[in-house]
Amino acid sequence: MKEEIVQFLEMVRQNNPLVHCITNYVSVNDCANILLEVGASPIMSDDIRDVEEIVGRSSACVLNIGTLEKRTIQSMIKAGIQANKKKIPVILDPVGAGATTYRTATAKKILKKIQVNILRGNISEIKALLETSFSTKGVDASIEDENSDFIKIAQQVALTYHCVVAITGKVDVVSDGVRTCKIANGHSLMAKVTGTGCMLSALVGAFCGANKNNFIATVSAVTIMGIAGEVAFSDSNSNGGGSYRVALHDALSKMDSLQIKEMAKIE
Amino acid sequence: MKEEIVQFLEMVRQNNPLVHCITNYVSVNDCANILLEVGASPIMSDDIRDVEEIVGRSSACVLNIGTLEKRTIQSMIKAGIQANKKKIPVILDPVGAGATTYRTATAKKILKKIQVNILRGNISEIKALLETSFSTKGVDASIEDENSDFIKIAQQVALTYHCVVAITGKVDVVSDGVRTCKIANGHSLMAKVTGTGCMLSALVGAFCGANKNNFIATVSAVTIMGIAGEVAFSDSNSNGGGSYRVALHDALSKMDSLQIKEMAKIE
Amino acid sequence: MKEEIVQFLEMVRQNNPLVHCITNYVSVNDCANILLEVGASPIMSDDIRDVEEIVGRSSACVLNIGTLEKRTIQSMIKAGIQANKKKIPVILDPVGAGATTYRTATAKKILKKIQVNILRGNISEIKALLETSFSTKGVDASIEDENSDFIKIAQQVALTYHCVVAITGKVDVVSDGVRTCKIANGHSLMAKVTGTGCMLSALVGAFCGANKNNFIATVSAVTIMGIAGEVAFSDSNSNGGGSYRVALHDALSKMDSLQIKEMAKIE
Repeated sequence: MKEEIVQFLEMVRQNNPLVHCITNYVSVNDCANILLEVGASPIMSDDIRDVEEIVGRSSACVLNIGTLEKRTIQSMIKAGIQANKKKIPVILDPVGAGATTYRTATAKKILKKIQVNILRGNISEIKALLETSFSTKGVDASIEDENSDFIKIAQQVALTYHCVVAITGKVDVVSDGVRTCKIANGHSLMAKVTGTGCMLSALVGAFCGANKNNFIATVSAVTIMGIAGEVAFSDSNSNGGGSYRVALHDALSKMDSLQIKEMAKIE
Repeated sequence: MKEEIVQFLEMVRQNNPLVHCITNYVSVNDCANILLEVGASPIMSDDIRDVEEIVGRSSACVLNIGTLEKRTIQSMIKAGIQANKKKIPVILDPVGAGATTYRTATAKKILKKIQVNILRGNISEIKALLETSFSTKGVDASIEDENSDFIKIAQQVALTYHCVVAITGKVDVVSDGVRTCKIANGHSLMAKVTGTGCMLSALVGAFCGANKNNFIATVSAVTIMGIAGEVAFSDSNSNGGGSYRVALHDALSKMDSLQIKEMAKIE
Repeated sequence: MKEEIVQFLEMVRQNNPLVHCITNYVSVNDCANILLEVGASPIMSDDIRDVEEIVGRSSACVLNIGTLEKRTIQSMIKAGIQANKKKIPVILDPVGAGATTYRTATAKKILKKIQVNILRGNISEIKALLETSFSTKGVDASIEDENSDFIKIAQQVALTYHCVVAITGKVDVVSDGVRTCKIANGHSLMAKVTGTGCMLSALVGAFCGANKNNFIATVSAVTIMGIAGEVAFSDSNSNGGGSYRVALHDALSKMDSLQIKEMAKIE
């Protein structure tokens, strides 16, 4: 897998995919910068009069409901439908699903109206997208430990929505329902910078936009983000949150094959 | 008071309060990061369908009219009413009150519909919230020097709205109408980074969310922000605005008891 | 010209112009910070109830359609009309014109309803604003090399809209239709930080707001941004995108006469 990740990153840099993001106003700047750093190009546009044409020029479409509102949800659905037509990958980041009724309902609505190709969230968010019956029986019955729980939920959600699912946490899990990978990279400080999850979803957009295989592309993005988190920790000398965030951006823009080969922890 | 500030910061770190912000899109990212750095958790959500449930999960509610618009003002009022019901502290940052009719009117409207618990602004913003008759008599008659002016205005506004008022400037004043503190921390470079006022308001949310005493919590947040501004100046070696901003975040995430005890300048 | 740039920067620092921006939520924070760093003051406000009064207090008005939506386009037009009445300079950044029909149409609509005084974009954006007949004949017939193309387009667009046009790219061109300057400052890494174009447009606002001559003010802003990009490259030691962005802000806040005199490359 490490060789493929190196290759997939190379493809991002060569193909310079245009990634259309309809995303929240909290981490949007970090998302745009991370796309540039990894070799992709960002285009942020959320007006319903604009999104179809933007999708028409893009290689991937990232939908993030972090600061959802009626106006942009409509744009997300229109963009997603167009992306399905054009057969470019759609990434959904269901920020806050499970936390409020409106967020859970919005994420499910998007999943119903659009063929989402990659779903990226934390365990609470992804769990909230399981159908109720599934959730009660499946999940509660199967908990042995957190890890096996993560894996089973990822697989179930992947099969339900016919997509690749990435659950990120201490250990990250990526599954398409059949194949499943565990990635043990990352650093606890990543949770102390706002929007690292959103940034990863944007990165998944870049990797899926530049490569044909959504499963490996998602594993690649998750792994590289995790490695960047570790490198940023070494480079920022425990100076604090501001320096760590800068170092995270630096690490992504300087990521090289050697780091991937030496540091990736994939099962 | 220094002992209490140390304790109050410790409580933020232990309780990890969830702070709901409906805030402007200019400094929202800095606000979210500062909450994480101090040990709280941010949740930014401004859709009227979402805010009641978000407030239901939160320990404080921060309303900031920096980039006000009709849609989010309605959400602010709904969120604030719910926060009053749930008895969690409401912080209002009346950005630009006094500068335009619309901003002054909006701040006053919020203060009328909601019991705001802490009001944080600069002198022009807070002055604009005095009732006219009050303003003319009280203020114009009482100006001896800037400091005494600040204190009298803070006290008057606190009594008018039954809340804690924090006026920030060269010297900061916090008053609940009865007790009043002057805090002489801070650095002039803070005015050269956009949104340091908004960040402070978010920080007040964290401190009031994790501690029962709004007056001391506000004094704590103001003092710690000021100390961070001074530390950032030493640490950033006059490298310029970009480095100073990073150093400000670093200082907040590394703030310790010793710094507070040695550096706090409270009267 | 170098002497004039030094003088114009000095005027920004002395006059501290208030620059009203209706801009996108991706780079808005960088724009606000860059204005502070150069000695101006930012005010971001996009509600139609607020913009006329804000313009009334401002020295320049910057309109940027990066994340355009119906609501803010109306505010832009209202703000621009008021700015024309008050005779303060209006800067338009037509982000994405040429990329989608909606963006091209919106930029043209603004140019029709408002006397824009400075138009700042990349070559694709500015080209898209040429009237069709003009574009086909004029442009296609005149391409000898990229540089002469840039110059001719800048001149044509300037004459069409009676404004100063700044086209930024490897080499930047500023023209008012009669006088034309080429500026060869800048660094390729600037394209790897999101929003450097938007930041420049905000900077043009600061320079035109503090100085009477829009042509020289625009040349000054373009030159200083380019020099900052070069200084940031030296100062950030190839550490990556995060460090480069911080260094860019630092360079702008520390820009001095000597750097301008030694580094400016203007023809």
